[in-house]
Amino acid sequence: MRRSLEVCLTHELLPLYSIEGKTVVVVDILRATSVMVTALAEGVESITPVASTDECKILQEQGYLAAAERSGDLVPGFDLGNSPLNFVNNDYSGRKLAMTTTNGTLAITRSIKASEVLIGAFLNISALTNYLKNSQRDLLILCAGWKGKVSYEDTLFAGALASNLLEDYHTDCDSAQIAMDQYNQVSSNLLAAIQKSAHYSRLIKLDIKEDFKFCTTRDLYDIVPKLFGKELKSVS
Amino acid sequence: MRRSLEVCLTHELLPLYSIEGKTVVVVDILRATSVMVTALAEGVESITPVASTDECKILQEQGYLAAAERSGDLVPGFDLGNSPLNFVNNDYSGRKLAMTTTNGTLAITRSIKASEVLIGAFLNISALTNYLKNSQRDLLILCAGWKGKVSYEDTLFAGALASNLLEDYHTDCDSAQIAMDQYNQVSSNLLAAIQKSAHYSRLIKLDIKEDFKFCTTRDLYDIVPKLFGKELKSVS
Repeated sequence: MRRSLEVCLTHELLPLYSIEGKTVVVVDILRATSVMVTALAEGVESITPVASTDECKILQEQGYLAAAERSGDLVPGFDLGNSPLNFVNNDYSGRKLAMTTTNGTLAITRSIKASEVLIGAFLNISALTNYLKNSQRDLLILCAGWKGKVSYEDTLFAGALASNLLEDYHTDCDSAQIAMDQYNQVSSNLLAAIQKSAHYSRLIKLDIKEDFKFCTTRDLYDIVPKLFGKELKSVS
Repeated sequence: MRRSLEVCLTHELLPLYSIEGKTVVVVDILRATSVMVTALAEGVESITPVASTDECKILQEQGYLAAAERSGDLVPGFDLGNSPLNFVNNDYSGRKLAMTTTNGTLAITRSIKASEVLIGAFLNISALTNYLKNSQRDLLILCAGWKGKVSYEDTLFAGALASNLLEDYHTDCDSAQIAMDQYNQVSSNLLAAIQKSAHYSRLIKLDIKEDFKFCTTRDLYDIVPKLFGKELKSVS
């Protein structure tokens, strides 16, 4: 029998979904999960997502490379903000990374009761698709959203991933159908599509145009980040 | 200056939105708001939406026609369930209607702090569009959803209405953009589109195929239901 696929459009709605026994794919395209895929693919040893800057600071004091972002900006006192290009332009190979962001890391810490937590981005969508095609578990794609609200680019990714999995999973989830309609409407130009998002307007003020282009690039990396205890590591 | 337009995809997320001073359009296509538009257009004097069956029973005892639905079914002891065709096939002209449903009436009772609460359905989408083009208030389209989750057909309607209003309202709301993408993808055949919804699968077991056809018909009625105190009445 085919496994089931659901989409939760913001972690604010997560209490309405059952996640025990399931695989949860956490999605925060702009930019937390794009950063996570990039960092691990570029050689970071592990990522510890934490909900608060206090927890992040403690790990920094223990020698972790520490990335902290709130509302798009680097939090003062930390090594890095929330740009994936940090990990392309610098060599952090072998370092352990601690990370806290406005929405993405919260979605991860809220998913710990799932059997498996994976990280999704356009950057690794084919690797993730292949991994999930070989999985036997039911699947929830969890969009991080923005401060509880639904976000355009995360929903778009959920629609892309759900479309890839239609042969292997069945769905009677309306959020998945909406996301797939959205994706099918705009899939020919992802970068143009996400310029409709509110997050684009927020982040463009921070002069990070290159980040948008990077975060809407498909399949730059062939890895799947997975949560082991409190650490994300690459499984391929 | 153009007014702002936002979409809230389920009343579960309503606490994240500000509604004071705004117009809220409540949407529950299958079937509460389709029933409300039909009942008022077909001659019912007023509709009192109530959150509980107990409140509905009290009004029934006072002489109201009483409609009560839970999970698609008529609640025993009430006059009517939640089919708009009740009001086409029977003459309830001049009657006062009390009504409680799984999701739609709850979305209305949660919206009472707004300056104005209107009722939307495909059945009155052009009348509603014209009314809103002449309004000066900011707008929130509130989808009822299904037991807190996002529903396909309500989001689809939100996308249709938002698309109609793009010249008159500005939006930086991602849920509105998602809904418009969805609507643009499937607008040529609404009935086929909503057959993708989970609610279709739930309701089709109740043998109400005609209701789906009816609820996806555009502009059968030229009225806009509006909340005055606790009663919905037609304003055109």
